[in-house]
Amino acid sequence: MQLLRDKIISEGKVLNNAILKVDSFLNHQIDPKLMKAMGEEFARRFEGEKIDKILTIEASGIAVAVMTGLALDVPVVFARKKKSAATNEDTYTAQVYSFTKAEKNNVTVSKRFIKPGENILIIDDFLANGQAALGLAEIVKQAGCKAVGIGIVIEKTFQPGAQKLAEAGYRVESLVRIASFDNNQVHFV
Amino acid sequence: MQLLRDKIISEGKVLNNAILKVDSFLNHQIDPKLMKAMGEEFARRFEGEKIDKILTIEASGIAVAVMTGLALDVPVVFARKKKSAATNEDTYTAQVYSFTKAEKNNVTVSKRFIKPGENILIIDDFLANGQAALGLAEIVKQAGCKAVGIGIVIEKTFQPGAQKLAEAGYRVESLVRIASFDNNQVHFV
Repeated sequence: MQLLRDKIISEGKVLNNAILKVDSFLNHQIDPKLMKAMGEEFARRFEGEKIDKILTIEASGIAVAVMTGLALDVPVVFARKKKSAATNEDTYTAQVYSFTKAEKNNVTVSKRFIKPGENILIIDDFLANGQAALGLAEIVKQAGCKAVGIGIVIEKTFQPGAQKLAEAGYRVESLVRIASFDNNQVHFV
Repeated sequence: MQLLRDKIISEGKVLNNAILKVDSFLNHQIDPKLMKAMGEEFARRFEGEKIDKILTIEASGIAVAVMTGLALDVPVVFARKKKSAATNEDTYTAQVYSFTKAEKNNVTVSKRFIKPGENILIIDDFLANGQAALGLAEIVKQAGCKAVGIGIVIEKTFQPGAQKLAEAGYRVESLVRIASFDNNQVHFV
């Protein structure tokens, strides 16, 4: 997606060989028009699929997921991150390890909002080690639903997430794919 | 706002005399079309005001804030909640006490995203005791900016938040105002 590539080139900051900072338009400050364009692009890519609901994770997945939900005319559910491992019979729970923050979180979704048999599109901002996406996919499975696909804003192809998701049989659609940050520059696939 | 009233009546759940659960369309599952309508309504209410940026707080403020940003064509910044009191010279920080969760959070915003002299519209989902809104207003003040107003999705008029904000000189625009939950029913103002 050219609009997103241009934004990453003009505003993204490569912090080291694995981390790209995009907090000026994606995960602290948000560019609403870009979110809308990205939501419409996800809707285009998954055209023809039956989608009942979108599942994302707080907080930085929400903006793009809501724009995708608007484009597809379906509700959006955001999974909540919890420190505590306390499980609850009213929620689906999966464990997600964040390499960036070096901490484990439980992500939970109320059983009232994902019903058995639904077709779910998972949306998230980054795909690196695949932990968040796998956690959301695990919740979809627990609920007896089908993950129609996984829409990712920025995929880092040099980290193992995309391959793990492909091996598990998921269709992944990334708006941009980054091959490396060599010489502190973004090299797209 | 009639659309929101109808949604509260059909889907809101009164848990006790102070708590309304609206997680089927606002703060866990999200109704994208309703968010868009609410964003446009905030844009209409603050028409004529110079607004450079919208400030909200993660996670449930993000969806409606982004739709407001889309309607007004301005960026959105969401403040982050942090447990730790560690301050940082790169961020503005305010302390926010949540009566619902009975816990103190620090909310922070990077100094890169609010610049002195900007006109900021604050958006949040609920106004009860006013803690979150006052925290965001405190950050706006720290940044040397002006809070043009505070847009609230659901105001509970029987709690002291709105009065505190009015006394502090802020213009508050609430999409619906609730006078009480007597007899487990929602009574609008």
